[in-house]
Formats: sequence, structure tokens, C-alpha cells
Amino acid sequence: MVKVGVAGYGVIGQRLADGVALQKDMELVGIADLAPTLSIRALKERGMPYDLYLVEGANKAAFDAAGIPVKGSFADLIGKVDIMLDSSPGGVGAKNKERYEKAGISAIFQGGEKNSVADVFFHGYANYEKGLGAKYLKLTSCNTTGLIRSVDCLDRNYGVDRVAITIIRRVADPGDYHRGLTNALQMDKAPSHQALDLMTIMPHVEATGILVHTPVTHGHIITVVAHGKQGKISKDMALLAFKAHDRIRVVRIEDGFLGNASFFRYARDLGNPRGDMYEIGLWEDSIVESGDHIMYAINIPQESVTIPETMDAIRAALRMQQDSASGTAETNKYLGLGKWK
Amino acid sequence: MVKVGVAGYGVIGQRLADGVALQKDMELVGIADLAPTLSIRALKERGMPYDLYLVEGANKAAFDAAGIPVKGSFADLIGKVDIMLDSSPGGVGAKNKERYEKAGISAIFQGGEKNSVADVFFHGYANYEKGLGAKYLKLTSCNTTGLIRSVDCLDRNYGVDRVAITIIRRVADPGDYHRGLTNALQMDKAPSHQALDLMTIMPHVEATGILVHTPVTHGHIITVVAHGKQGKISKDMALLAFKAHDRIRVVRIEDGFLGNASFFRYARDLGNPRGDMYEIGLWEDSIVESGDHIMYAINIPQESVTIPETMDAIRAALRMQQDSASGTAETNKYLGLGKWK
Amino acid sequence: MVKVGVAGYGVIGQRLADGVALQKDMELVGIADLAPTLSIRALKERGMPYDLYLVEGANKAAFDAAGIPVKGSFADLIGKVDIMLDSSPGGVGAKNKERYEKAGISAIFQGGEKNSVADVFFHGYANYEKGLGAKYLKLTSCNTTGLIRSVDCLDRNYGVDRVAITIIRRVADPGDYHRGLTNALQMDKAPSHQALDLMTIMPHVEATGILVHTPVTHGHIITVVAHGKQGKISKDMALLAFKAHDRIRVVRIEDGFLGNASFFRYARDLGNPRGDMYEIGLWEDSIVESGDHIMYAINIPQESVTIPETMDAIRAALRMQQDSASGTAETNKYLGLGKWK
Amino acid sequence: MVKVGVAGYGVIGQRLADGVALQKDMELVGIADLAPTLSIRALKERGMPYDLYLVEGANKAAFDAAGIPVKGSFADLIGKVDIMLDSSPGGVGAKNKERYEKAGISAIFQGGEKNSVADVFFHGYANYEKGLGAKYLKLTSCNTTGLIRSVDCLDRNYGVDRVAITIIRRVADPGDYHRGLTNALQMDKAPSHQALDLMTIMPHVEATGILVHTPVTHGHIITVVAHGKQGKISKDMALLAFKAHDRIRVVRIEDGFLGNASFFRYARDLGNPRGDMYEIGLWEDSIVESGDHIMYAINIPQESVTIPETMDAIRAALRMQQDSASGTAETNKYLGLGKWK
Repeated sequence: MVKVGVAGYGVIGQRLADGVALQKDMELVGIADLAPTLSIRALKERGMPYDLYLVEGANKAAFDAAGIPVKGSFADLIGKVDIMLDSSPGGVGAKNKERYEKAGISAIFQGGEKNSVADVFFHGYANYEKGLGAKYLKLTSCNTTGLIRSVDCLDRNYGVDRVAITIIRRVADPGDYHRGLTNALQMDKAPSHQALDLMTIMPHVEATGILVHTPVTHGHIITVVAHGKQGKISKDMALLAFKAHDRIRVVRIEDGFLGNASFFRYARDLGNPRGDMYEIGLWEDSIVESGDHIMYAINIPQESVTIPETMDAIRAALRMQQDSASGTAETNKYLGLGKWK
Repeated sequence: MVKVGVAGYGVIGQRLADGVALQKDMELVGIADLAPTLSIRALKERGMPYDLYLVEGANKAAFDAAGIPVKGSFADLIGKVDIMLDSSPGGVGAKNKERYEKAGISAIFQGGEKNSVADVFFHGYANYEKGLGAKYLKLTSCNTTGLIRSVDCLDRNYGVDRVAITIIRRVADPGDYHRGLTNALQMDKAPSHQALDLMTIMPHVEATGILVHTPVTHGHIITVVAHGKQGKISKDMALLAFKAHDRIRVVRIEDGFLGNASFFRYARDLGNPRGDMYEIGLWEDSIVESGDHIMYAINIPQESVTIPETMDAIRAALRMQQDSASGTAETNKYLGLGKWK
Repeated sequence: MVKVGVAGYGVIGQRLADGVALQKDMELVGIADLAPTLSIRALKERGMPYDLYLVEGANKAAFDAAGIPVKGSFADLIGKVDIMLDSSPGGVGAKNKERYEKAGISAIFQGGEKNSVADVFFHGYANYEKGLGAKYLKLTSCNTTGLIRSVDCLDRNYGVDRVAITIIRRVADPGDYHRGLTNALQMDKAPSHQALDLMTIMPHVEATGILVHTPVTHGHIITVVAHGKQGKISKDMALLAFKAHDRIRVVRIEDGFLGNASFFRYARDLGNPRGDMYEIGLWEDSIVESGDHIMYAINIPQESVTIPETMDAIRAALRMQQDSASGTAETNKYLGLGKWK
Repeated sequence: MVKVGVAGYGVIGQRLADGVALQKDMELVGIADLAPTLSIRALKERGMPYDLYLVEGANKAAFDAAGIPVKGSFADLIGKVDIMLDSSPGGVGAKNKERYEKAGISAIFQGGEKNSVADVFFHGYANYEKGLGAKYLKLTSCNTTGLIRSVDCLDRNYGVDRVAITIIRRVADPGDYHRGLTNALQMDKAPSHQALDLMTIMPHVEATGILVHTPVTHGHIITVVAHGKQGKISKDMALLAFKAHDRIRVVRIEDGFLGNASFFRYARDLGNPRGDMYEIGLWEDSIVESGDHIMYAINIPQESVTIPETMDAIRAALRMQQDSASGTAETNKYLGLGKWK
């Protein structure tokens, strides 16, 4: 039984904790945080299903005032785990790494950290084998994780050598008040980091892209123009591959999936905790062919999409499974992915 | 065991079904709908926890194509229940009523129907006794339901004889594509129907109000200026009453409840199905006194706030409990309301 | 002096009227509308710079009540003009056409009408010559007009044979209350009509595209992936061509043009009437090369972008100038386009 | 001829400059700023109608690179004017004051500065006489300025002794990218500063209020519950007073003024520079009576509403007119206020 800790119980940290708790071959030892945030208060109202440890600088009195039980210090948590999932705010993970090294434990960092924090920049499908036995891994960001799922899926089946992407990015998560955009689309300098990251993970693909921020909170939408290495990938070929993937939901506008908010509503109606969805969405009615290219659109549930690949990363880092096929299959089994097909 | 059906499995209908399923002294016989919407598709993916009946005009072939099992017709459902919760689109409920009358069953209509559809315009706290044994009840709308909770709470404790409200209304629900507003505030002709409805339910209170639509999806916010019948209601007095109420959550900005979206996030983090919340929120830091008036702000989770009062309505209509105190207590027990305090 | 009328004084109609009024070789005879809208009320408050004619079904009493002077009937206006710019609501233009035919006058329809209403589907740069002497022309829609400006610009200079576009569409205009979208991105079935329309106007280019609606009011953003017919078009080559175009503004994020809302603010600060801009924006920092493709992003000021090309259409239909170069130059001169460079 | 300078050419500064330029008894000597912002670039594209002076720390090279002519230093500007309108970012004005004192010139600060920066907290209608001859004045903020217009109007005519307000605040201006809110309403701790400020300016009125931020850019909406000092103010009485006011536009929903965005569209259609409006809007259909109270809603065009009162402030500070009636009348004449009635 692999022992896992989670540092930072924010939007991602909560979902990592939930994800680990579902893996029957892992044990969630506890989570660490700094302040009695709403998420920590909700944990308390739920009866503390996860033990809480406090990082340095935490105001213990504030936790006491809110009646939130504390199990121990961050050092205590580090001492009990085999691997830490670090979803601290950007930059903090790099500092935490020194402590993980000293304690001799592994760690997996989220997209907010610099690549240099880790030995391997990781994606469960596209380069699982590179992560095998690695001490420190960094996950791709939410957009890149979902994007690579779809591109790797085509590449694995038919070969892909070039993609051009347009990322229509949601600018904040539901409940965010520290960032936002009002009645404006915002440009990022091109090329987008997601295109560059894709090339790092899949070096045989040439990629570029433009990112535009939009004032919504539910799910990024990415359009992908892809070129088949061995000739054109037709809509039928693409659909065949996408439908067979356990982390891709192929849906249709005519069935009611009108946009990113439809996915959120559907996940809520499914009874998924927090209305989360681990799968990316892919619109069948968005797939079009043009010359020797194929174009399609996907939906990225930004709060939860990286959870499965992070579980894969634990499996790779600790050599729980030896290849992508068996590692991702184990994750999918415990998260119930692919069952809906 | 009271047998209950739900007509219309939309935003409200789903939550009514879930609410009934939680009442240990009620049995949810099934739900009726017209088309294989996303909500019905989600029901199927969940394994059909509720039986589905089709209303007239439903395209059975479309359900078959989507692999959605159908239990019977709307007539079949009507024949099996003691009472129907009708959350059909506005106007359809009035037509359905003829069938309920013919079958001799009771029904509870939602806010979208005209008042004339029902014998009693109902609120679980403010006029439960009027609903006792009534055959046809209509629930107050989401805003009015939450508003009355707070005004009735003050009135019950200290007496209230006048209120002026400003409703800052969310314009659509998450996932709505059939209505919306973009970068605009929209005025309604005053006085708002919610103020008029409050006077219907609480005839001893004089009320007026202005409603402004805002382009958000999470929770209406209402400001209330109230005048105490027997003199000024102080902030301390108000807090004492509000905090004792099982369907009001008193919260603070400084704890992280920054606005309507904070409530939504908190409910998601609590693990509440669909991220719903039955309680209204009330900001302690919004309560101010001025002259002999008190002013405060509340948050109305529009998708779920009417569920408890609808359960109360079943209890009143079928004389399951004989007064507001025992009826609402029973509802609260099964929905877990007040437990968090 | 060419005599011009405008039917429909809405978002587009007002701007057409202003545009014609600026052409020194045209005379704006008047505008026709149905109801005392805010735009008509503003016209009255401005002292009726344009004469108003009423279409059939107009409630004259309502205009009288608002003190708005009326010059005559739609028939009167038709009798006085050489050409009508028809910006009536979609579908009405087709009906009006019968009257234009009977009166023997030309007409130019906007994007909302079906292509079949016109003899020629027109763009001032891409197919001016096709419009020469044509009786009935239809303008491309706002997105297509701006898109073609940029693609035609590259094509004219270097040859283009394939484009794939992603349209990030603003969903409503400032002040619109009859349509809107709240916290949602919405997919359209692919391929987008703009890609198809581009192929109609530029039949030697293969085009496809995906359109996503976003909840903003200021300017569509389109990303374009283009392939050079005679080899790769480099960023420098593209910039050289774009900067020489009188209806394209090349701008930079680092200068403060952060997104579509920056263009709107800039146009307001320029003192442009209504804060309008005739030029599309093109971000220098968005241009990227990848393999033999070039990718870039443009901003489409949806309310005003079609005005110059409609002036071009008058020039073509009435043979005022005989080719694209001289026709567009005349329009640009009177609208002050290119002066800012 | 009074010589006026403007420090800070941002959203407010530009409009102050335009306002001064319209006053026939004032001369705009120039404006001062720090960086070649979009607003400064637009000034250049317009041909530098106003002379530009650079404040300390400005990067002259950046202005040169953008081809923007510079007239002199901030010290030069200070040396040429009788009074400075300081619309620098919050806090900078207080520092600038030392220089104004040294140079012996007057200054008027905007709402972002602390009250202590000025001798008098000023409103053109409510306390003009307090500003007579004062060296340093601070204007009320945009919300407070518009709110006081309406409350002072009722007070002046009928007496008001108590108000409770709800401010539905726009969270950013069109084109703002440095702040924003996405799909959320945000609460401020009550009472709102606007209520407190109103009591400072109108000490005989008791006021309280709650402010809620909303994700829109066009115009705050404020609801006001007011109590008449000498008995109830009826709707007819209120309308009579409001309609006679030169800085209040009484409008109706049924005429098409559906919300804050309608005002913005109307001002654009009027041809007002930048689509600005100096008047507040007041909805006739929002006025309701309840008991001895009156309730109504107003629209505050946040970018431009304080300009007239700032012109008034110049008149008071420099004793150009000796009382509110003649001072505001002069401002109104040059800005064309009241002419539309």
C-alpha cells in the first residue's frame, strides 16, 4: 500500500486527495495547508475525512477558533509518506522540494512550477515510460494534459506530425475572486506555452498555437488542426480512435452538449463529487476535414482533468506498473473511467 | 408511506426527486419527462435510480436510440401516486392539473405557474397551516422562498411591519443556453413580484422592491431594509434569530464567503450532490442599523432553495404533520439541515 | 451625386448612414425604420441630421408622441434614391427587394439575408470586379469581411491556398438585451459558415473552421492558420503586407492592445463616433510560423467593419470606379482609412 | 481666463481635459502623464489637441519611439496654471499636493485620494458654498456624486432625512484588463463608503447602504429608499423634481431604456465623444411608494459622471461664481446639460 500525502488543499489539491482516496492500492495519509480556507472549513463540516497537517507559518489559533482539528505538522506528514503530491501555489513547490529530498521521498509537482523542479515532465499516455522510477515529476498543465490526450490518441493510431491549436481559455474557476476578466477577450503572446509543452512531451510533433482568455469559469475549449504523418486522418478514423479512449467523451451538440457549461451541468447531474469530470469532451459535430488536415474541438474541465494523469505519475514514479497501458488502466479502473461507454 | 411523483425532470424536478428520495416517510415512485435531455441521459448513465415515465408527445424512439429504459406513461405514474410535484415548464402545470383532478390526487406547483392554479400559495414557515389538507398548492419562487425565510424569522421573533428589497438576480443557471445576458444589468418594472408575493403570504407586512438582473449564474443576492413593528431590531437581535434558524447559514466575508460564487464553491467542497445548497446565506458583515431600520443581505441558491419548502408542502397537503414547527422539523431532519451548526 | 437610402436604422443601418454621409460623391437621402427605438430617439435628440421615412406597419402615433418628425413613407424614399442599403432584420430585405425591382433601383443587402437575394456575394477587395454593374449585391458578414481582408492581403501578395480558422465570436453588441450568453462558451456545428463563405468569394482557397461563441460584446477574434501557395509565408513577409493595408491595423500587446476591449477603448479615445473602428486589428505578437504554415490572430469590430466594403459595393454596383484598387481607394479617402499610419 | 492643467490622463483625466476644453471661461493648458498608454497614443493619432507634459520618472525615450511630441515637464505645467485637476492613481495626488502648495496653485483631487488631502469634500449641488475659495478640494466618487444629485434634488424640494441604498456596482471600465470579476457577485463589508460619504456632504441625512460588485462594465445602478422629512414624498412629487434637474435624465423601460447598457448605447448613438454621458439616468418605472417611503433606481455612468461637478469645483475654488445655482448653471451651459429636455 503506497502512502501518499497532498501539500496544498486548494482547487487541485482537494481533487488529488479525492483521487488518491479512490485508488485501492494507495493510502491517503493526509493533506497539508496553511490557512482555514473555505475548502478546509468544508473538510471540517464533512467530519475531517482526511487528516490535516499544518505547514510552517500557519496560524494555529485561527484553526482552533474555527474548531478545525489538526493532526500534526508538515514535517510529520512528510515523515509518513512515500510520495507527496505538491499542489502548493506556484514557486512554493520548488522550496518544498528541498524537504522532500532531505526526507528521501518522491514528489509530483503541478503545472504551476517550473520544469526545472522535476526530473521528468510527465503525461500518463504520452511518456509514462520516461517517468518510471523518477524521483521528481512535474505534470503537464490542465490544457496541455487534455490536449495531449487527444493528439496522442491520433498519433498512437495513425501518426501525427504537426498541430496548430487555438486555446479558448476560461479565465477563472467557479468561486475565484482573486482573478477575473469582465467583458473582454485577452490575447497572450504567441506561441502558447501549451504548444511548446506538447513538443517537449511529444518531440516528433511540430506544434504552434495562440491562446485567448475568455470571461467564463467552466472548461477551456481548444481547437486542433492536425496533420497525419502517413496521410490524411479522416473524420471516421479519428472518431474510431477517440471513442475507444477511456479519458475522452465523444459527444454531440444535437444531444444537448452545447458548450463547456453543458459538460459542467452534465457532471453535476451525474452526481459526480463537486460536479467534476475527469474526461475531456470531444464534439463529434466539430470534426472537419480540409485538404490533408483534420480539425476538431475539445473541452477541458480545468479543475479535475489532471487528476488521472497524476495518479498515473504515482504509478510510474513508484514503478507500481511498468508501462503506460497497465498504469493508465489501473488508474482508470479505480476512477471508473470508460465505464460509461 | 406517502407515494410521490415528479413531473418535469429539469433543474428543479431533479432536485425535487432527490429531496423526496431522502425523506424516509415518502416514496419516490418515479419521474416524468418529454425528451432525452442531458439530465435524463445522466440519469441513465447513473443506472436509472428513478423510474422514468413519458408524458404525451414524447418521442419514444429517441429514448430507445439513447438506450434509456422507460417504465410507463404519465397516466401510469399518475395512477400510482398520492401527490404529484409538478415542475413542468410554466403553463403546462395548469393543463396537467385537470388530469390530477380527474385522478383525485393532490399536486404542488412551482413558482412558474399562475397563483390561480392552486388553492394555497405556500411557504413552509410563514403559512404552513394554510396548506393543511389543501389539494393544490403553489410554492413561492426561489427568491421569494429565501426572502420570506429571513423576514419570517425576524417577524416571528420581533415583529416586522415593513420591508423594502433590492433583488440582484442571477439571470441564468449554470449550463443554460436558452437565456442569458452579456455585460448588462437589466431593470424590471417596479415593484418586483417578490415584494407583492411576500405581502400575499405575510399580509401584515408592507413590502416593495426593485429587481435588477445581472449576468451571473450562481445565486441571487437580496438586500432587505426592514422595520421592526415593536421598535428597532438591532444587529445583535437579528443575528440571534438568524443563527437559530435551520435553513439560514450566517457567514462572514472575512471567513472567505466573498459572494454568491463562494457559496457555490463551498457546497461543492462539502460534497453536496450537484454542489447544491438548501440553506440561504446571510452575511453577518452586511447587517447594519440605521435609525429604526435594519438592513442585511442574503444569498439565494436558486436551483435548490425551494426543495425544503416543497417537502414541507407535501407534509401540509397530506396532513403528515399538523403545524409548521413539526412539519419543517421533519423535512430538516431528512435533509440534514441545521446539523452543520 | 449618387443618391442613397438606408432601410433599417439599427446597429448596422446607423453606421451605413454615417458612412454614406462621409462620401463626398454620394448623398444620403434618408433612412427608413419601423419604430421609435432608442437609435431613432437619439437621432431626434441630435436634431434629425438624417430625414426619417416610415416603413409599412409603423405606428405613426408613437413617433408623434415622442416628437420625432417624419419626412415621408418608405415608398417616398425608394422613389428618391439610386440605390438602397438594406439593413432590415434578416428576411425582411428579401421582401423589400420586390419593391426595389418594381422601382428599378439597385440594392445592397447585409449578411443576414440569404445569398439568393443577390446577384453577387461581394467583398470590396476580393471580388470587386464581380460586383461591377450588378443590380443586387449582398455583403459578407462582419466576421467574413474582416477575415477576407487579411487572407486576401496575403493571397494578393504571396498566394494562399488553404486556411483553417477558429472564430472566437462576441455573442451580442453593447446594449443588446434580446440575446446573450452567461458564463458559457457555445459551439456551432462545424464547418463555420464563414469558412464556406470565404470559399465562395475566394474559390481558389480551401477553407474550414470552427466557431465558438463567447460572452463578450466587443469584437470577434479569429485565429487563422494559412498555407502559402508558393511556399511558406514568413512572419516578416506577412507583416510587410499587413502593414501596407489601409483597413488593417497592426498592433502589439506590449503597446497596450491586450485584447478586443483595448480596440474599443482606443477607438473611443480617438474620438471616433460611437467608439467605432472600420479597421480590423492584427496582433504582431500573435504571428507565428510552424512548418510551412503561418498563424495569426485578428480583431473584428463587428458593428462597423462592414461599412467600408458596403461603400465599395455602391461604387461597384453603380460603376463609380472600375476596379478594386480605385474603388477601395475612394472609400478609404472619405473614411480617413490609412491616414493614421 | 482661468488656466487649468490635468495630471493623469487616464479614464477620468481624459474626460476632465475634454470638459475643461468645453468651458469657454477656462483654458486647458495641458495634461501630464507618465507613460505612452493607449490614451496617449490616441491623443497623438488625433494630432495632439492637448499639450503633453511628462511627470518625473517618465521614460522619454518610449514617447520618442512612439513619435509622441512632449511639451515640457510636470514642473513646467504647474508653473503655467491657476489650478490643477489631479486624477493621478490613488495616493499619488497626495504627493503631488506638496508641489502644488509650493507653487501656490489650487488643486482638485478625485475620489481615489483620502479625504485628508483636501480642505473640503465637495459636491457641486449639495455643498458648493463650502468650496468657495478653498485651496484644495476633493470630489466625491462617481457613485456618490450621482447618488447625491438625486438625494439632494429631493431634499432641496421636499426635505429628506433618511436613505438606505443598495449599490449594484460595475466592476471594471470598458477596456480594463487589470481588474475584473467573472460569473460572480461580490459583497463589500457594510455600510458602504458611499453612504458614509453622503452623510459627510449632507450631515442632516442619516444614511446606510450595502454594495455588491457585478461583472459588467457599463454604469452602476443604485436603488435608493428615501424618507421625507416633512412626510411622504409621492411618485408624482419625485418625478416633478427629478425632471426639472439638468443632470438627471428621467427615462422609461418601455421606451427602450432596459438597463445600464441602454444608456451606453444611447450615448453612443447621440454621438457623444467616447459614448459618454454626464447625466445620471433615473427610471420612472422604478419609482414606487411604500408607507412613508419612496424607492427608485438610478444609473451612474462611472467614467464621466464626475466631470460636471469637477467643473463646478473649479468655479467654487476660484470664486468664479458665488453660489451653487450660478456655478452649476455655468457648467451646464458649456456642457450642454439640460438642453435635451
